[in-house]
Amino acid sequence: MESQNTKYSNPTDEDYNINQDQAIVTRRIQRLSLHLNPVSEHPVFSDSLQLLTCAGRAKINVNVENLSKYMRGKHRDIQERVYEYFNARPDLQTPLEISKDAHRELCMRQLMGLVREAGIRPFKYVVEDPAKYFAIIEAVGSVDMSLGIKMGVQYSLWGGSVLNLGTKKHKDKYFEGIDNMEYPGCFAMTELHHVTNRNSYRFEIISNQCVQMFKAFRLLQLLIRSRDEFIIDTPNDGAIKWWIGNAAVHGKFATVFAKLMLPTHDTKGVSDMGVHAFIVPIRDMKTHEALPGIEIHDCGHKVGLNGVDNGALKFRSVRIPRDNLLNRFGGVSRDGKYTSSLPSINKRFAATLGELVGGRVGLAYSSVGVLKIAVTIAVRYSLLRQQFGPPKQPEISILDYQSQQHKLMPMLASTYAFHFATSHLVEKYSEMKKSHDEELVGDVHTLSAGLKAYVTSYTAKSLSTCREACGGHGYAAVNRFGSLRNDHDIFQTFEGDNTVLLQQVAAYLLKQYKEKFQGGTLTVTWNYLRESMNTYLSQPNPVTSRWEGEDHLRNPNFQLDAFRYRTSRLLQSVAVRLQKHSKTLGGFGAWNRCLNHLLTLAESHIESVILAKFIEAVRSCPDASSRAALKLVCDLYALDRIWNDIGTYRNVDYLAPNKAKAIHKLSEYLSFQVKNIARELVDGFELPDHVTRAPIGTQVAKEAYSQYTQYAGF
Amino acid sequence: MESQNTKYSNPTDEDYNINQDQAIVTRRIQRLSLHLNPVSEHPVFSDSLQLLTCAGRAKINVNVENLSKYMRGKHRDIQERVYEYFNARPDLQTPLEISKDAHRELCMRQLMGLVREAGIRPFKYVVEDPAKYFAIIEAVGSVDMSLGIKMGVQYSLWGGSVLNLGTKKHKDKYFEGIDNMEYPGCFAMTELHHVTNRNSYRFEIISNQCVQMFKAFRLLQLLIRSRDEFIIDTPNDGAIKWWIGNAAVHGKFATVFAKLMLPTHDTKGVSDMGVHAFIVPIRDMKTHEALPGIEIHDCGHKVGLNGVDNGALKFRSVRIPRDNLLNRFGGVSRDGKYTSSLPSINKRFAATLGELVGGRVGLAYSSVGVLKIAVTIAVRYSLLRQQFGPPKQPEISILDYQSQQHKLMPMLASTYAFHFATSHLVEKYSEMKKSHDEELVGDVHTLSAGLKAYVTSYTAKSLSTCREACGGHGYAAVNRFGSLRNDHDIFQTFEGDNTVLLQQVAAYLLKQYKEKFQGGTLTVTWNYLRESMNTYLSQPNPVTSRWEGEDHLRNPNFQLDAFRYRTSRLLQSVAVRLQKHSKTLGGFGAWNRCLNHLLTLAESHIESVILAKFIEAVRSCPDASSRAALKLVCDLYALDRIWNDIGTYRNVDYLAPNKAKAIHKLSEYLSFQVKNIARELVDGFELPDHVTRAPIGTQVAKEAYSQYTQYAGF
Repeated sequence: MESQNTKYSNPTDEDYNINQDQAIVTRRIQRLSLHLNPVSEHPVFSDSLQLLTCAGRAKINVNVENLSKYMRGKHRDIQERVYEYFNARPDLQTPLEISKDAHRELCMRQLMGLVREAGIRPFKYVVEDPAKYFAIIEAVGSVDMSLGIKMGVQYSLWGGSVLNLGTKKHKDKYFEGIDNMEYPGCFAMTELHHVTNRNSYRFEIISNQCVQMFKAFRLLQLLIRSRDEFIIDTPNDGAIKWWIGNAAVHGKFATVFAKLMLPTHDTKGVSDMGVHAFIVPIRDMKTHEALPGIEIHDCGHKVGLNGVDNGALKFRSVRIPRDNLLNRFGGVSRDGKYTSSLPSINKRFAATLGELVGGRVGLAYSSVGVLKIAVTIAVRYSLLRQQFGPPKQPEISILDYQSQQHKLMPMLASTYAFHFATSHLVEKYSEMKKSHDEELVGDVHTLSAGLKAYVTSYTAKSLSTCREACGGHGYAAVNRFGSLRNDHDIFQTFEGDNTVLLQQVAAYLLKQYKEKFQGGTLTVTWNYLRESMNTYLSQPNPVTSRWEGEDHLRNPNFQLDAFRYRTSRLLQSVAVRLQKHSKTLGGFGAWNRCLNHLLTLAESHIESVILAKFIEAVRSCPDASSRAALKLVCDLYALDRIWNDIGTYRNVDYLAPNKAKAIHKLSEYLSFQVKNIARELVDGFELPDHVTRAPIGTQVAKEAYSQYTQYAGF
Repeated sequence: MESQNTKYSNPTDEDYNINQDQAIVTRRIQRLSLHLNPVSEHPVFSDSLQLLTCAGRAKINVNVENLSKYMRGKHRDIQERVYEYFNARPDLQTPLEISKDAHRELCMRQLMGLVREAGIRPFKYVVEDPAKYFAIIEAVGSVDMSLGIKMGVQYSLWGGSVLNLGTKKHKDKYFEGIDNMEYPGCFAMTELHHVTNRNSYRFEIISNQCVQMFKAFRLLQLLIRSRDEFIIDTPNDGAIKWWIGNAAVHGKFATVFAKLMLPTHDTKGVSDMGVHAFIVPIRDMKTHEALPGIEIHDCGHKVGLNGVDNGALKFRSVRIPRDNLLNRFGGVSRDGKYTSSLPSINKRFAATLGELVGGRVGLAYSSVGVLKIAVTIAVRYSLLRQQFGPPKQPEISILDYQSQQHKLMPMLASTYAFHFATSHLVEKYSEMKKSHDEELVGDVHTLSAGLKAYVTSYTAKSLSTCREACGGHGYAAVNRFGSLRNDHDIFQTFEGDNTVLLQQVAAYLLKQYKEKFQGGTLTVTWNYLRESMNTYLSQPNPVTSRWEGEDHLRNPNFQLDAFRYRTSRLLQSVAVRLQKHSKTLGGFGAWNRCLNHLLTLAESHIESVILAKFIEAVRSCPDASSRAALKLVCDLYALDRIWNDIGTYRNVDYLAPNKAKAIHKLSEYLSFQVKNIARELVDGFELPDHVTRAPIGTQVAKEAYSQYTQYAGF
């Protein structure tokens, strides 16, 4: 093992020069091979060292076609249909300047065109083939993110609530109208705020599962037995349904979440059955006027997504038929008797929310789609743009600068990492929709919460970085970063605030930790990794903590061990702290005192999952050159993340100081190597120019500036 | 000194409960006092420990009026005149939805109104009282940032170039017209791109001072002696002047930067005298038509600042009188003879750019103004918004959550830190404009570059954080975060790309380091700190690296030492690396290889300056309760920054692991303490509601939601 500790395999000045004599490269690979250790701790990664030699010093010759083929997945055909439809319809493309009202109308026309002209009917895929549905959502999002969200409101939220929370009678009645857009609808969950109330029911029903997303449900709901109807009322302004997509202009129906209050024969007179979902017609099918008792207002301009007509709904004694209760998890008979297969309000609410997890899966997946567009534009421009160079020599591209590589190459690596992680999530989600396996439900719930939070936060930051990295031309609206950022921004908040979702991940990990701990065993598993964490709970190995050879640092075993070691340490230490603080502060206070720690734990865990899936994807790639490229990108992802949290690793002496420095040096060098294949890596996303649409990001670089001057009128 | 190492002064659970019996607080303060060490290493901070007791466990009683008085400075009266003028003129307020063209016209009307109706004439302050000028720019920026930038283009850039680069004849001719807006003008420096050219002159003239900002100057300029005129030409599309503010619609003149080519009698026929500035009339004074040979196009929609009419300018054999050369640093006689008081092209160009440093000072200062607005809105909303709480107890505000404190309290502390640092910069700049002291010129140049880069990057990130921290309501356009972010975004790029500016800071530090080193002494000083760095170049003290008592961690001597130690280490190590790599890669290659390292050095240095100025401001505050509040905020700033870069400190063993943990724990606790006075701290910025303008951020919290529902139409 001595070779692990040698230094001469670390990059030197000459390694940065790809134009050096190829002989140097070959020599180096040979020298490296001498130090390769064929004994792998986990047999699963036994071919990783072979990959390392592929990904050696020479510039990798990437076959873009093979890489794309591996990346694009089986649903790319439907995406291409979307792209082509809109490319052939310039009248349906969103201009740079458009008023809110015109944008909403255009967005509706885009959706109608897609469904009725292009014949793409997403609704059936919501049930039959979720992966295909998400592929459509991603593709329409690149046309105009408002369209992606409007479609999501119609089919995932409004349509999804009917399919998932209703029963056969609802599907029979509404499926066709939702599918063909005759029944545009809303999903009315969020409320303006809620009022402090000492005897609040809220904490009980909402549970830790969804602390912020679903807010309070203060809508009063009464069953009038004699008329076989419900009456729905908004008791105060704080309970106004707010931010409801499709409500301000186009919606005919809304799925409204409200407390179900049933009359009783005792002295209380009324009994709260918890939050249920009801179909409420909000506008007349013919005149499109708001129905009696329903007050609708416009929530107004938003930072982005102004093609979506978010509105506010207030109800005054609105009567709806008893059949409009979406009764999959709980129903009311004609005589006012409540029946449910689930025993408690909490269980029913959890089941209701559980069916809505698809929205998060779609957001995580679409967020990667946005990141791909931004990275593609930023990388292509950075290769095009020349700025200075050594004296008397040709200028170099700005991507040749270490600072620009630092901004963009770990981001490109993360984009690949997220691609594989979210593809995995979509697969698991599709599996879950078929099997309804309970363990899978828990996995998908946590994974979707974690990936949605982690990926959308990362993409949001990256959009700003891309704008800044492209300087003044990045600030031209035509180059997309502004609208991508403004539209995507809210991905961090809707379908569950990211800070809240990460707490769900932490809570899930703690639950598993505690269950196992109380059972007397320490073999805690992270379900969806099928890996035991107890191997990571020992003290760091003082020998391996000093290994700093490139072969060791690029070994997936080391990388995964580092990620999981950190997660395990964070989990164990936060569990101890929570227990300690609970004694003085109670459960709620202790949780709040450890909140930053819990969020760090959740992020660390999600990074572990992302890395594990990326390593798997590298291994599974059938094409050798693509595999070598992916291995390089995966190494950059892993080492950049470790360096990013180097303080934690150093603080527990998992890494000795020199190893920390070696990781930093190697990740800078890997950024340089990824830069050498950056063009091919973004080409691998296979986004045509009519999808990226930024003059500075065209595939054929020499056209960029002339497109740009033409755009200005020269 | 043993007491430094005790642990019991660190915060415990009970310290977080401000409602605990006051007796606990008093006891604790007494206990703390016992451990205070009256011996201070630097006498300058001898009162710091006294401050510490003021800032002890109890909630500080902040007198907002006194705090504001200390913060607001002597130019707040003129800012209030600006606020009041626009508050009284709703017709001049920018609506949420406005087309680009209408926005440009409105912005022009706003500027005309201010100058001609409100009688605020900023131009004279550009010369007489720059601090007052910057105060006006900050205030108009809060009305509409486009207005701030349009005013900056008119008075700092176009006006400033005439004043600073021209001579008396230019001032006499143009002052009045610029002042009263009869001569709206442009500053035509930036070009679309530049072309690779092996014999490029660029690197030589632009020097390391301004690598990216000033790009290439490919405009050909010829003196035709017989007609006493210059002819100006744009040789290719890459040399089109691009992003020129005021050019697309309103400008009548432009200061154009171009190479001065003079005829010679030798075989070359022409001699390049370097880049000079020329006044070029671009539109007819009466008809407003573009003048012959001048092609003007619109640069189109931008991510933000659409009230500013950025355009592109192309020149075809445009003749201008010889007198239009701004000849302060170099002139041409009637017979074509060049004269200058400065010996070389480089010196002349440096002098020219040196005069333009005011733009950066203004941007750094205004960026803090933007940050103040955003932090005020986010903090007030976070205090208003209730979300859950312990079972059966009232809900708590979202600012009571540790995660929200983590997002916003270090940001609030940074806002205060930046306020004092940029105020200091403005003072130094005003001093420089009066004294022209050469050392001061160097200081102001570096400080303005560094603060502009550091502060604008921080504000840009913070605007996204504030939006996200305010959830869905943060996404309503009316609550400002979107437009603030979009408008401010480009602050990171114009007047010098931040990545380039930070390199100037690093270059300046290295220059000083090398000069001293070659002189055989190590007593390098950071000029504007008047502090020696060599005290920081020794090995970390193994005893103090373990001190973790609160009194030690809150001692400004420790904090400054930590910041400067880091800067010194980074400076020394990058100097060594640069020397090493220069041998194999040459100067340019070595610089690029160490670029990330150099940027870290620059940021570290700027943080040191900011902390030093903050500590001074705490000490100088005459009001005891304000001083205690500022001391608390300053401690949070210092410890948060140290924790933020904990990897570096741990890697050189400046901090032992337990000390690192104590710093983390204390900074979380200080965030909690700052939260307790957060309302008073944002009130201290004294921004009236008609300036912040966000319904969720009103001063009187209970009005927030009702304003919001009224806004939607309920």
